[in-house]
Amino acid sequence: MYLEDLIFHQEHSIVSQSLAATQSAWVTNDDGFGVAWYTQRTTPGLFKDVLPAWNDANLRSLAAHIRTRLFFAHVRATTGTAINRSNCHPFIWQNWTFMHNGKIGNWHDCRKSVEDLIDHVHYPHREGTTDSEALFLVALSKGLIHDPIRALQSTLRDVTKIMERHNADEPMRISCALTNGREMWAFRFSSDDQSPSMYYGSPHTRAGENQLHAITTIASEPSDSDAAHWFKVEERNGVHWTERGLEHFEISI
Amino acid sequence: MYLEDLIFHQEHSIVSQSLAATQSAWVTNDDGFGVAWYTQRTTPGLFKDVLPAWNDANLRSLAAHIRTRLFFAHVRATTGTAINRSNCHPFIWQNWTFMHNGKIGNWHDCRKSVEDLIDHVHYPHREGTTDSEALFLVALSKGLIHDPIRALQSTLRDVTKIMERHNADEPMRISCALTNGREMWAFRFSSDDQSPSMYYGSPHTRAGENQLHAITTIASEPSDSDAAHWFKVEERNGVHWTERGLEHFEISI
Amino acid sequence: MYLEDLIFHQEHSIVSQSLAATQSAWVTNDDGFGVAWYTQRTTPGLFKDVLPAWNDANLRSLAAHIRTRLFFAHVRATTGTAINRSNCHPFIWQNWTFMHNGKIGNWHDCRKSVEDLIDHVHYPHREGTTDSEALFLVALSKGLIHDPIRALQSTLRDVTKIMERHNADEPMRISCALTNGREMWAFRFSSDDQSPSMYYGSPHTRAGENQLHAITTIASEPSDSDAAHWFKVEERNGVHWTERGLEHFEISI
Amino acid sequence: MYLEDLIFHQEHSIVSQSLAATQSAWVTNDDGFGVAWYTQRTTPGLFKDVLPAWNDANLRSLAAHIRTRLFFAHVRATTGTAINRSNCHPFIWQNWTFMHNGKIGNWHDCRKSVEDLIDHVHYPHREGTTDSEALFLVALSKGLIHDPIRALQSTLRDVTKIMERHNADEPMRISCALTNGREMWAFRFSSDDQSPSMYYGSPHTRAGENQLHAITTIASEPSDSDAAHWFKVEERNGVHWTERGLEHFEISI
Repeated sequence: MYLEDLIFHQEHSIVSQSLAATQSAWVTNDDGFGVAWYTQRTTPGLFKDVLPAWNDANLRSLAAHIRTRLFFAHVRATTGTAINRSNCHPFIWQNWTFMHNGKIGNWHDCRKSVEDLIDHVHYPHREGTTDSEALFLVALSKGLIHDPIRALQSTLRDVTKIMERHNADEPMRISCALTNGREMWAFRFSSDDQSPSMYYGSPHTRAGENQLHAITTIASEPSDSDAAHWFKVEERNGVHWTERGLEHFEISI
Repeated sequence: MYLEDLIFHQEHSIVSQSLAATQSAWVTNDDGFGVAWYTQRTTPGLFKDVLPAWNDANLRSLAAHIRTRLFFAHVRATTGTAINRSNCHPFIWQNWTFMHNGKIGNWHDCRKSVEDLIDHVHYPHREGTTDSEALFLVALSKGLIHDPIRALQSTLRDVTKIMERHNADEPMRISCALTNGREMWAFRFSSDDQSPSMYYGSPHTRAGENQLHAITTIASEPSDSDAAHWFKVEERNGVHWTERGLEHFEISI
Repeated sequence: MYLEDLIFHQEHSIVSQSLAATQSAWVTNDDGFGVAWYTQRTTPGLFKDVLPAWNDANLRSLAAHIRTRLFFAHVRATTGTAINRSNCHPFIWQNWTFMHNGKIGNWHDCRKSVEDLIDHVHYPHREGTTDSEALFLVALSKGLIHDPIRALQSTLRDVTKIMERHNADEPMRISCALTNGREMWAFRFSSDDQSPSMYYGSPHTRAGENQLHAITTIASEPSDSDAAHWFKVEERNGVHWTERGLEHFEISI
Repeated sequence: MYLEDLIFHQEHSIVSQSLAATQSAWVTNDDGFGVAWYTQRTTPGLFKDVLPAWNDANLRSLAAHIRTRLFFAHVRATTGTAINRSNCHPFIWQNWTFMHNGKIGNWHDCRKSVEDLIDHVHYPHREGTTDSEALFLVALSKGLIHDPIRALQSTLRDVTKIMERHNADEPMRISCALTNGREMWAFRFSSDDQSPSMYYGSPHTRAGENQLHAITTIASEPSDSDAAHWFKVEERNGVHWTERGLEHFEISI
């Protein structure tokens, strides 16, 4: 499929969407956007800019020319950190890609303690100041590439403790997606049962009726209005996608 | 080949280069850059930005992931018009791509008369204010897609008259490249025999010794230092590249 | 007053506004923004960017440090032309500043004929491709600096004829503002009585109750919710502001 | 004076310069630029962008309209960290402004330990990933606003130890400038006696012969070619400027 089939040519596309992940993924807002896509190379391609996504001529042209079997797309709404390309999602590490919707509560207070959990291998790779990139690097430090769910759960556990230690009065709300280029994980977790919504399904795409089965989508909102195409991911639940299909898992910390 | 094989992984790559075209092409400077590359679609992909090319993370990632059999790359040094993406080369029209090094003398004075030569079909496509985009649109108005050399010669003839009418005291210096995605044309022409230099050749690339024969390059400067790889294009001369090989032609107006 | 008093510190500020002009002026959207402000120099200062205005750190800092007695601010929603700084309002010529909300119908068809009305003095100053900048340059060619209303009326008359000649099926809708740094003109005109709204008034500002009398504002929407502060400008009507007060005028073409 | 008097209208201006500070200051390169200037407000104005400085229309207009008695200007050459506005100098904290030329050796290895020296008050203010911003925040954590030289010396001492602990094989080279809006400090320090050059003097400016005495400049290179205007700052030496004049000091760690 071409990127544009899912980014632009959907009933509810990147302009009206929030988080997503799959085989395709996106978010709406205008504090910058990013796309990571897998090709024949090990690491994904990565394109980010701080302009509004819907009018960006570069994104339109790239989306019309890049073919991929799996990509992440994200449009950012800042929760307080600076607007620059380094703070745009997705974030990549070798063959891994991560993106996130939501926030760690009282990030300004908790940031130093969270960043301190990043080990010396991954610390130099920190390019921005977002809670999202920090979550990814902490999880990488905790062995994400060997056991993603376990590493992310451990990360959330530690972040919860840090928030408690700083008497955070804002909630933690996480709706995130991860891939290694072959498998994909996405889940919701929050301290107040209000993490950003997440759906998975198989929207109709221009890419051709006959290959629709292949286009599994995880998104913050359904990208078409046919309710039969979409299933909601519940709080503290996640989906693990592989070529063999989708499996559900629970998140507990 | 990947874009990066020629854009970044050459002894004298885009950082030190000026104009180029082929199968690959580039220019050095830092008032913005652009890349157009051909895929399976009819129109080429197009990516432009106003940042210095050599440090742009987007360009690096795209160059590492985009595979193409033919592309144009350009880094712009403004000759007076505004710095914005619309003024960055290359310029595209349907399946055609054009880029240019040099300038029309006394552009500010001659601009209105030159733009007046653009017909109503192509005029709405004018997005910037450069002499380069104007040359392309005038030539398109004169039938470039049917006979490129004839249309460009006619364009240069008319521009020369316009410069004379405005008593231009600056020279016209044109070193340009054009492609329809299958064939490529590039030539030098000037009013004072000082158009920007142009070379063609087959530089060594990382892409593999065994396919070197396929990577014909037209560039403003040789991209490696082995003189045996490169041939100079003389003033009022051009090269026409097809899959069958290179042919020479002369430009007279 | 500081720019921020009116750009950011209003109940309905630049984020929720559309066109404006005065002593202060703005528009909301996110295809770029611009501010022109008068200092002790003859020409106004000019700052434009293509990022969303409300999160731009440069704009926030400039707005907090630039003091001025008269400024124009604009946030752009493109009606089809490219997103770049050259296409952002306001547009300036010597000591004159112009900005615009609305559009010339069927601009792609009419553009060449409208641009042809720009004389050789002002044509080289055309930096973008918008109908707005073209209106300003045509009016300048028709003597705007000597008689602004007459020149703009003549421009609208000619543009109306051009639209008729091209059988335009879209309306012309103009809501614009102009200043020479001492006086200000703003008016509404359209072919279908639906030009963008315009109000003038004296919003409460943080700048201090005691100097409120000095802060006349013309805006696309009231910037505070006290209806007593605001007067609507009707279709085919305009206001002319000088230090002595506001005068009304009618637009007929 | 206007910013442009020193940024653009000098024999060797920002285009050919490197570090500077005063009453005026700049650096040459093209990985972004920044200007901080003092007005009647407590905090300085701040304007940063990642475009090449010399062709930026915003910078040209701002420089022509902003009047100030004291400013810092910087053009960045990255030493490896990302190109974005957050990484552009100068950096500000309340009424303090800091900028820097040079680098901490083996920054990737040492970064986490250096950032760990930033206290909880200043850590949330870290917006980028440069060694320069880190130096400023560490010094602020060590009481820079009470005793700048002492805090910076203590910072350099700690950084030296961290570099030793990580067996850094690259040198530390620091040429920096600091101001609180009334006084200015600038010095050179390095581990190998090769910190970037620094000069102070009183260049001729367009601002008028009669106020030349007031325009003390600290810069990486003399901004005019009259050797009589300039004095070199030696390694491990600094200058402290106040309204009463310049004093010299030594740096020892």
